[in-house]
Amino acid sequence: MNILFVMYDQLRFDYLSCAGHPYLHTPNFDRVAARGVRFTNAYVQSPICGASRMSFYTGRYASSHGAQWNGFPLRVGEHTLGDHLRKAGMDCWLIGKTHMKVDAEGMTRLGLSPDSIIGARQAECGFDVWVRDDGLWGEGPDGFYDEKRSPYNEYLKSRGYAGENPWADFANAGVENGEKASGWMFDNADKPANIREEDSETPWLTTRTIEFIEQAKAPWCAHVSYIKPHWPYIVPAPYHDMYGQNHVPAAIRADVERENAHPVYAAFMANKIAAAFQQDDVRRKVIPAYMGLIKQCDDQLGRLLDYLEETGRMEDTMIVLTSDHGDYLGDHWLGEKDLFHEPSVKIPMIVYDPRSEADATRGTTCDALVEAIDLAPTFLEAAGGVEAGHILEGRSLSPWLRGETPDWREAVISEYDYSVTPMCASLGVTTKDARLFMVFDGRYKLIHVEGGFRPMLFDLENDPEEFHDLAKADGHEAEIARMYDLLARWGRRMSQRVTRSDADIAAMRGKSARRGILPFLKDGSEVPEELTEAYRGPALQDHVSSEKGGR
Amino acid sequence: MNILFVMYDQLRFDYLSCAGHPYLHTPNFDRVAARGVRFTNAYVQSPICGASRMSFYTGRYASSHGAQWNGFPLRVGEHTLGDHLRKAGMDCWLIGKTHMKVDAEGMTRLGLSPDSIIGARQAECGFDVWVRDDGLWGEGPDGFYDEKRSPYNEYLKSRGYAGENPWADFANAGVENGEKASGWMFDNADKPANIREEDSETPWLTTRTIEFIEQAKAPWCAHVSYIKPHWPYIVPAPYHDMYGQNHVPAAIRADVERENAHPVYAAFMANKIAAAFQQDDVRRKVIPAYMGLIKQCDDQLGRLLDYLEETGRMEDTMIVLTSDHGDYLGDHWLGEKDLFHEPSVKIPMIVYDPRSEADATRGTTCDALVEAIDLAPTFLEAAGGVEAGHILEGRSLSPWLRGETPDWREAVISEYDYSVTPMCASLGVTTKDARLFMVFDGRYKLIHVEGGFRPMLFDLENDPEEFHDLAKADGHEAEIARMYDLLARWGRRMSQRVTRSDADIAAMRGKSARRGILPFLKDGSEVPEELTEAYRGPALQDHVSSEKGGR
Repeated sequence: MNILFVMYDQLRFDYLSCAGHPYLHTPNFDRVAARGVRFTNAYVQSPICGASRMSFYTGRYASSHGAQWNGFPLRVGEHTLGDHLRKAGMDCWLIGKTHMKVDAEGMTRLGLSPDSIIGARQAECGFDVWVRDDGLWGEGPDGFYDEKRSPYNEYLKSRGYAGENPWADFANAGVENGEKASGWMFDNADKPANIREEDSETPWLTTRTIEFIEQAKAPWCAHVSYIKPHWPYIVPAPYHDMYGQNHVPAAIRADVERENAHPVYAAFMANKIAAAFQQDDVRRKVIPAYMGLIKQCDDQLGRLLDYLEETGRMEDTMIVLTSDHGDYLGDHWLGEKDLFHEPSVKIPMIVYDPRSEADATRGTTCDALVEAIDLAPTFLEAAGGVEAGHILEGRSLSPWLRGETPDWREAVISEYDYSVTPMCASLGVTTKDARLFMVFDGRYKLIHVEGGFRPMLFDLENDPEEFHDLAKADGHEAEIARMYDLLARWGRRMSQRVTRSDADIAAMRGKSARRGILPFLKDGSEVPEELTEAYRGPALQDHVSSEKGGR
Repeated sequence: MNILFVMYDQLRFDYLSCAGHPYLHTPNFDRVAARGVRFTNAYVQSPICGASRMSFYTGRYASSHGAQWNGFPLRVGEHTLGDHLRKAGMDCWLIGKTHMKVDAEGMTRLGLSPDSIIGARQAECGFDVWVRDDGLWGEGPDGFYDEKRSPYNEYLKSRGYAGENPWADFANAGVENGEKASGWMFDNADKPANIREEDSETPWLTTRTIEFIEQAKAPWCAHVSYIKPHWPYIVPAPYHDMYGQNHVPAAIRADVERENAHPVYAAFMANKIAAAFQQDDVRRKVIPAYMGLIKQCDDQLGRLLDYLEETGRMEDTMIVLTSDHGDYLGDHWLGEKDLFHEPSVKIPMIVYDPRSEADATRGTTCDALVEAIDLAPTFLEAAGGVEAGHILEGRSLSPWLRGETPDWREAVISEYDYSVTPMCASLGVTTKDARLFMVFDGRYKLIHVEGGFRPMLFDLENDPEEFHDLAKADGHEAEIARMYDLLARWGRRMSQRVTRSDADIAAMRGKSARRGILPFLKDGSEVPEELTEAYRGPALQDHVSSEKGGR
């Protein structure tokens, strides 16, 4: 079996027609959902690209792998999906974005050359690279945000687009009065990107994916990782005007959220991104573009699915459609992601398993509490690998795909490290304390705030829109304590005993006795003589008596 | 400055005259204590050789480095004391035991050759090796417990001792009626080991240490790591009969401990080692030998101190005397270590700092709650290195040595993973749940037992002998909850963000804006024009209008 592990960047869980979006029609996402299982309670381990992805790619919580924000390198030697799958005989390829930052210090310390296969995989989060393009070719007075080469920019140049950064000048800019109308400015979000649609990022990566599959030798896993619908919010024609102002839902926000708001939430509501998305004209410009970007993703997904059907690959390829986090889009007075309201931390998660064992669940939904880290063990099982629960912290979704009801986790955990953000400085929090933890048990969502702050608490059964932070007032001590117990149990988890599997440990038991370690012998009669044989026999010399003249 | 980091294996905190032992006179330990600070509340991070040592050598909790039992490899790439000190320009050498097990799978996965300097350090827990000898050359039907070569056995052979394993046949055996009297049998503990005293393990390692210092180029750190007074309990003349039955204190144990005992404690009380030490004749044989081994350590320490004084090294060498854990010796109905009563988890910790800043504290004691992981940052500071709080979880003891009273931790943490032991199987606990956590705040000691068991709680103010497990009955809910809060806070600690220091993080803030990442611009007026300059200017081509015939 092969695995097509498709990720869309910053795709909200509810911007798909199969998830109930009132205006956005995504027949190709729905087509996969109709043949697989749509998990309706899937959460990321951190609502930020880099940390979330490192969790997907390692199967481990953010606190376990340590790469807790964009640009925090994944430490050298951390086990990745690629390590696990290759051990099971499956290749593991990257086509698109990872947001992986190499642990250059660690590579140097261990003497690893980036040019070796091992070094290259360490630098690429365990993937072999078909195409690596993180899709953010922003440029400012200090240079490029991303200093690597951009295969996409090279592609655009080869197609005749001018300049050093056609990503910025064409794919992510429109034109107004002969001037560039940058996609970075929300005012330009309704303009068509100044690029042939087939040259824009999503079709480009889809073409690269088809090229990969054309030549791939089974079994393979391909991580097809689109930059879109992530900002800059601008999309080529015809997608730029498929949706208009009447397709923009009212923001999910309420004045009560701003009353006596938790200081950390208040700080995020006061940042520049939130301030922009609090303006309705920004939402009216941005959201139709965001929807257009998703519609384009859906059309390209259709192209890919058609290709898989034509080539017979639908019969032997598992398909996963997911996202690394959502997008507030002005909900809860916020933009971007970062915090733990559903539009940010919940993700789409659609899994199609071609095996007949999964026939019973096709076209169904599953509301189990799923974590992003569940995919790695799901893939390892699909690859026929040996279970690696001492490293992988997620749980295989296969039982759900087969229609079983396994024992399952009581709560999902997500984390956010805001030490790099201006909010850390404005709140006067130390870098070690600039951390948030979400525990959600399917009804209550507790957010623990390190650094001496009170927690936040939401009851999603009675307040599905998460307007009422119950921890603002007394009266919910029991629920808070219960959620803290769940968090504490998670905090004590066995996450770093990665050099010994359960099977290794069972095999070690009792072995030292058969290698002569018996620190409980009074006279040796406690164990079979074979275990003490080495201790017996004639004295080989007698130094004591020779020096003391006999005893 | 140099650092002499001396560890004795399994040396109890209270078997020194400076710590109040009534019969055992240790003038040389006392001599260091008189010139330094004796820390009276020092605890190991795990009361078992391997895990404890990996915490000493990494400055990190057992749950953080993951090598939680003997023979669990320290994962490749984990930062060690050697990494930190070498970065500060100080060499870091090993003379003796580490109990390090190489992460061979990780080395292979990263392509590291054990023959390279980098590979050798990875295999030796970051040390350069002057002598490595783990000192347990037990042998049984499945071969040697330790499959490496033994420099000590080679030394003995060179001195004319016969056979393949003179460690077992001479250094750790006496003679009775012309037969070997193995030191593994407690019945033989009162016999002199069949070896010239100067050839026994402690003098041998002391000689190797002096040889090292003779040739060492400052600044150096030397980890001098004695196997003794660890079992086998047998010692050469004249130490074998320096102490007798009237020097054996009564066991610290009470019948109340066995009443309604916690199931995990009960399982340990029922193991073979405990059963042996519950016999008073075992204690009467073993404890005088244990005292003789310590007395020999003290004499050899005197030899080393004399050498340092003669050569002027006392003026520029920090000296630390400590242990990796204690020894129950029958207290609390137990033998060995493993659990968290004071005789097991508390260690001697004497620190002599030659610098004049430490003059004010010479000969004093300090009752701050110290952890084994505090030594690594203490050494790093002594070496003049850059603070590494994102990796090292301990705190430098230097303020205490200077007579200051720093803000300090509220509680010490120790852990024990018993997954490999027969008790895990007999209790029917999974390998992931076979873990214990101790939290001690200077008065209350809570032991959390994973796997659904109740905790244990001791009040050392009212019950310094730890006979009364207060969690057997109701009435201490508030203290238990408070201790659990301390444990939960520790569980949420930032332990794996090792690739970014606090300084790195502060330096990252705001940098992305100057590299063109500005996801909050409505029209660009939000920021200085220099930040949006790259977004402006004439459109380089107009694909949209060229394809659509102008707009």
